[in-house]
Amino acid sequence: MPVDRPIVTLTSDFGLADAYVAAMKAAVLRHCPEANLIDITHQVPRHDILAGSIALERAVAAFDEETVHLAVVDPGVGGPRRLAAALVRGQWIVCPDNGLMTWALRRWAPGETFEIIWRPRQSSATFHGRDIMAPVAGWLADAVRRDELLRPMDDPVLLDVHLAQNAGDGRVIHLDGFGNATTNIPAELVGTDGYAKVWAADREIGPLRRTYSDVAPGEALALIGSSGLLEIAVRDGSAGQVLGLRVGDEVHWR
Amino acid sequence: MPVDRPIVTLTSDFGLADAYVAAMKAAVLRHCPEANLIDITHQVPRHDILAGSIALERAVAAFDEETVHLAVVDPGVGGPRRLAAALVRGQWIVCPDNGLMTWALRRWAPGETFEIIWRPRQSSATFHGRDIMAPVAGWLADAVRRDELLRPMDDPVLLDVHLAQNAGDGRVIHLDGFGNATTNIPAELVGTDGYAKVWAADREIGPLRRTYSDVAPGEALALIGSSGLLEIAVRDGSAGQVLGLRVGDEVHWR
Amino acid sequence: MPVDRPIVTLTSDFGLADAYVAAMKAAVLRHCPEANLIDITHQVPRHDILAGSIALERAVAAFDEETVHLAVVDPGVGGPRRLAAALVRGQWIVCPDNGLMTWALRRWAPGETFEIIWRPRQSSATFHGRDIMAPVAGWLADAVRRDELLRPMDDPVLLDVHLAQNAGDGRVIHLDGFGNATTNIPAELVGTDGYAKVWAADREIGPLRRTYSDVAPGEALALIGSSGLLEIAVRDGSAGQVLGLRVGDEVHWR
Repeated sequence: MPVDRPIVTLTSDFGLADAYVAAMKAAVLRHCPEANLIDITHQVPRHDILAGSIALERAVAAFDEETVHLAVVDPGVGGPRRLAAALVRGQWIVCPDNGLMTWALRRWAPGETFEIIWRPRQSSATFHGRDIMAPVAGWLADAVRRDELLRPMDDPVLLDVHLAQNAGDGRVIHLDGFGNATTNIPAELVGTDGYAKVWAADREIGPLRRTYSDVAPGEALALIGSSGLLEIAVRDGSAGQVLGLRVGDEVHWR
Repeated sequence: MPVDRPIVTLTSDFGLADAYVAAMKAAVLRHCPEANLIDITHQVPRHDILAGSIALERAVAAFDEETVHLAVVDPGVGGPRRLAAALVRGQWIVCPDNGLMTWALRRWAPGETFEIIWRPRQSSATFHGRDIMAPVAGWLADAVRRDELLRPMDDPVLLDVHLAQNAGDGRVIHLDGFGNATTNIPAELVGTDGYAKVWAADREIGPLRRTYSDVAPGEALALIGSSGLLEIAVRDGSAGQVLGLRVGDEVHWR
Repeated sequence: MPVDRPIVTLTSDFGLADAYVAAMKAAVLRHCPEANLIDITHQVPRHDILAGSIALERAVAAFDEETVHLAVVDPGVGGPRRLAAALVRGQWIVCPDNGLMTWALRRWAPGETFEIIWRPRQSSATFHGRDIMAPVAGWLADAVRRDELLRPMDDPVLLDVHLAQNAGDGRVIHLDGFGNATTNIPAELVGTDGYAKVWAADREIGPLRRTYSDVAPGEALALIGSSGLLEIAVRDGSAGQVLGLRVGDEVHWR
């Protein structure tokens, strides 16, 4: 049953300088005039599918059932890559089949995955976000035509990024706009009893803290971030800059 | 007849660091509480009327009849410049009469143009976007009071930018946030049969391509962009930076 | 009585690169699905409570009764600082009790201030904007549960910034994205008869002007800005850069 004002979120690497995001919104609204459009971010670094995947998972975590998430980081637009949809936590994802839905599928498994089979009569070769994915997102928000839009697909493209299973597995997976380093280490694994010690960037970060103000300004700390994952931060500063942390760097604890 | 949730778009050079955009939105909502507000962009380079004009045309292209587009790039605020409205594609534009509606009028001719005659009892001398244009946009979205707001105007200020009519006419008219160079050359003129060859920045760009992945990363290409105009791009790069393209540069094809 | 689509505005220092703003919006919508969400700005300089306070006051000035303003610049998150609400101009403010509501209270006195007593069963220690303040904002927009959420508080934290009372009191309180310098000097104090002369940055700025185009491009001027306060600007330029003005600098007139 369609909800009154179905939420459709948008994530992309389009930036905010041009009308590209608005063009996608127009296409969503044309197919679902009641949609409540919410921007996640459009400042995913250009063509950075992993960063887009992290933002998209945050969208899935934040919203509730029936929400539709349109995510477009699409360096292969116009080429042979498929278009995909997924159903996770009762929410729809619509995106290119290039790994963008990886992190949402990892954290909210199991999910169902689909290929988008609908195509418009006419489409640009460079903007499938507007011409194909946005209409599909609008229709899914309206809870109509699903069988005409999708078919099951069991081999979605997935990035090589995983939730840590043990202490040898920890990696930085994202640096946010403040320079906080998110890892793939879930709170459950590291424990929150305050006895864990954390190493990153070849140095000891110290014991697990509760919040930023537990250390002095400029000091590094490890804590469970708002995403439920271990984060390395610098109070009032940037862990990326101060510690030189980069995506892929190992993070250890014991 | 007013629509249920009339769409009002906003385009400006206000940036996103201050409350100026929100002040315009408040004024639109005061006069049309059901308005569905959609940002086009607020990162038009300061006082760059041509760039604002390109963004505004994209808004008109993206949305449907009854939409109202409020566009404010207004270096002459408080001075003698008139305020304008236009009806193109069944959509309203509200903006200063300084050329901002040029590109929408060029691409979607014929349009009707008007002068805004309504004035509030009190107004700042520096923010007519909030004090005059936003209320007018709200009223037009509500489909009321048109005769009290507008009178026909047949001499709007227009910029010296035109759709190319022949091969000597091609120009770069915009560089988007990725550095893609949009030209004034419509797809119909250059043809899409793949036999056209394109020159820009004193070099041969090559044949018309279909999409970015038709060339190797870092290579320049010409293609019909999502706006239906010839674009010069660099795959995974910036045509503005790599080729040194600037607005006004000549583009040739044969 | 709740309004049909209550307006909830959002102000923060979260930037637009991550999903943090969307996470707050999701939490507001969960508690008030009909909320009309309006961004004020999310580019408050990180941890700059005074700048956030100026933006928040602009939000209160722009909107009408029943609006709820959620403002989160929260360097002390997870520490002992209280959470606050205020009722000014018939509008609600929800924010940390760290001085963020100062400027709204100064300009729209008298206001009522409250402490937020509601706490969720579970909360992150680093994102009370999402976990506590956004739900409270949503409930206040829905006009429910006020007594369970708030208790009167008569000693809110306030910043040391005041409306100027006389000619010795003038200060720069904000530099906007264009480099215009807003002062704490209300129009009523300086008069608008054109006879005032203004000094700032150890130089004479000249007589009070009406609008930017009253001086030549590149020239400094003083005028009453759209906030009803004296502003120092440079036509087509940045007063911050050209004049070296900074927040706290003295401004004189006579």
